Amino acid sequence: MLAFLDDRQRAHAPKTFMAAGVKRPSPEAPARVDLLKAGAEAAGCQVSTPKDAGIAPIEALHDAAYLTFLQTIHARWQEIPGAAEEVIPNVHPRARSDGYPTGAVGQAGYHQADTACPISADTWDAAYWSAQTAIAATDAVLGGSRSAYALCRPPGHHAYTDQAGGFCFLNNSAIAAQRLLEAGRRPVILDVDVHHGNGTQGVFYDRGDVLTVSIHADPSAFYPFFWGYAGETGTGAGQGANLNLPLAMGSGTDAMLSALDTAFAKIEAFGADVIVVALGLDAHETDPFQALKVTTEGFERIGMAIAALGLPLVCVQEGGYVSPSLAEALTAFLTGVQQT
Amino acid sequence: MLAFLDDRQRAHAPKTFMAAGVKRPSPEAPARVDLLKAGAEAAGCQVSTPKDAGIAPIEALHDAAYLTFLQTIHARWQEIPGAAEEVIPNVHPRARSDGYPTGAVGQAGYHQADTACPISADTWDAAYWSAQTAIAATDAVLGGSRSAYALCRPPGHHAYTDQAGGFCFLNNSAIAAQRLLEAGRRPVILDVDVHHGNGTQGVFYDRGDVLTVSIHADPSAFYPFFWGYAGETGTGAGQGANLNLPLAMGSGTDAMLSALDTAFAKIEAFGADVIVVALGLDAHETDPFQALKVTTEGFERIGMAIAALGLPLVCVQEGGYVSPSLAEALTAFLTGVQQT
Repeated sequence: MLAFLDDRQRAHAPKTFMAAGVKRPSPEAPARVDLLKAGAEAAGCQVSTPKDAGIAPIEALHDAAYLTFLQTIHARWQEIPGAAEEVIPNVHPRARSDGYPTGAVGQAGYHQADTACPISADTWDAAYWSAQTAIAATDAVLGGSRSAYALCRPPGHHAYTDQAGGFCFLNNSAIAAQRLLEAGRRPVILDVDVHHGNGTQGVFYDRGDVLTVSIHADPSAFYPFFWGYAGETGTGAGQGANLNLPLAMGSGTDAMLSALDTAFAKIEAFGADVIVVALGLDAHETDPFQALKVTTEGFERIGMAIAALGLPLVCVQEGGYVSPSLAEALTAFLTGVQQT
Repeated sequence: MLAFLDDRQRAHAPKTFMAAGVKRPSPEAPARVDLLKAGAEAAGCQVSTPKDAGIAPIEALHDAAYLTFLQTIHARWQEIPGAAEEVIPNVHPRARSDGYPTGAVGQAGYHQADTACPISADTWDAAYWSAQTAIAATDAVLGGSRSAYALCRPPGHHAYTDQAGGFCFLNNSAIAAQRLLEAGRRPVILDVDVHHGNGTQGVFYDRGDVLTVSIHADPSAFYPFFWGYAGETGTGAGQGANLNLPLAMGSGTDAMLSALDTAFAKIEAFGADVIVVALGLDAHETDPFQALKVTTEGFERIGMAIAALGLPLVCVQEGGYVSPSLAEALTAFLTGVQQT
């Protein structure tokens, strides 16, 4: 199985993770890359460096003002007297239609949903190459590969067209789906990360050309809190093209597999011909987030079940944090995919 | 001139003010109360304790879920393992119509716009009595007083019906205007705080029964960033009933007086019969925010100009922070009011 990673993705090393009013170490650490690479290799992947497809596939999804923000905000932030090293928002609009300020603090609040996406001097470059990794995997599948794995880091599924959040800057899974769409395919994004894929949902919420499905822990008291409920089914042309399958906190492998069956029926009805798997591994029972209890063997069954649909798979890494089993969970999933 | 203050307003003593990623001391300190009280007394005010008008006048303006949040969130927050002493949000919705979570972290992000409105065990009680102070001044004017001063602290004009922000929890000026309206009056809220009165604007934005006018420093790179632009004129029934008069950074007394003339024409056209002055003093040249350059003598002229309209005045304290001239600025304004 082909896999992609660029070492420049390691440069983003967030220092700040404000949660419940306290500064903590960020779980989205560069050390994840080594664990995930080892996990992919243990499943037989050959890890290659992606080509540079340029910014056009990223611009096809993200707003121009947001991309400018990501590339320039760190330097502008440094000009604020006494500002922190990393760009961290502290004030936010109520609606996207509110005024768009010119200053750095206001723009940070507009484009960063939370304090879990600090921007350093290295963030843009790492996010750019993370997206290129997803694009390379997409192109491999478009070129005829049955499946490919993109070791995307930083992850992407909490990013909107115009907003970072939850460790995410560029929505790698959505960029992949957009690229598949433009190549004439009919994609579904199937998100198995323990957190709802709110950015992905938001990107396509009023569009009917990409089906978005997310299986995740109940967001009532869990990130991203404001989205991921079963009643969110899309709007306008996108009505019916979003499916949320929230699971009760503590649910395990069987609940995930049961939700997958529901997802598969929706995918079949939609007529998808390619699947972007938004592959979070943080539903694992040993993940630091401790919201769901999927076992390592469970991830193998998930991989098998998805592959059994017989559709090409672009597997895009999302969450999954440093734990004894992160590499094992990835190996299990990719092994499952290749068994079918 | 009658003035109102309750000592319970002092109990709210915010410890945290995250700005540009750095924790700083909050400018909205209880010490403001002593300076403002001295300033009012120097202008001849007799400072009384407000009666308790109960929660009904507050409920007339604010959403029930938000009031429950303010009263209960601190205790719930303490149950989060490792949470900070004060409730500080770290993740926010994109729209008010997004899902309303049940958990404390999500609700904090829904109801707190920024990191400048930390909630302690004492916040609700202080905000409640700050609102009672505004209600007492309103009732004094309804009872026939030509003018009254409410030493509201914490302030209110950044608070929406459902959201705290910028040191504010309950919108005292808006509560006063709503009470005047219910007594059959036709109120305008005239906001001269250096920051745009975004909460006040938001409360009445789709209503035509209360005119809202704000004179403030250009928000492009200044709090509240997303509102306060000249193009925001109201919507629906409120179309034309909001007037923003942003001033260039560094503007002084003359610019403020010139903007007031524009405001007065609007107030006359609206047919207001009572003015709620949202009385920020942070446009003073020595205020720590350093955005506008109004002199102490300028505040006297502002007071005289507003009083010259001949309408009853409910003067509700908003911002204005610890500086050598905070008390003097208030004395000057209230002296000006009483000269006309």
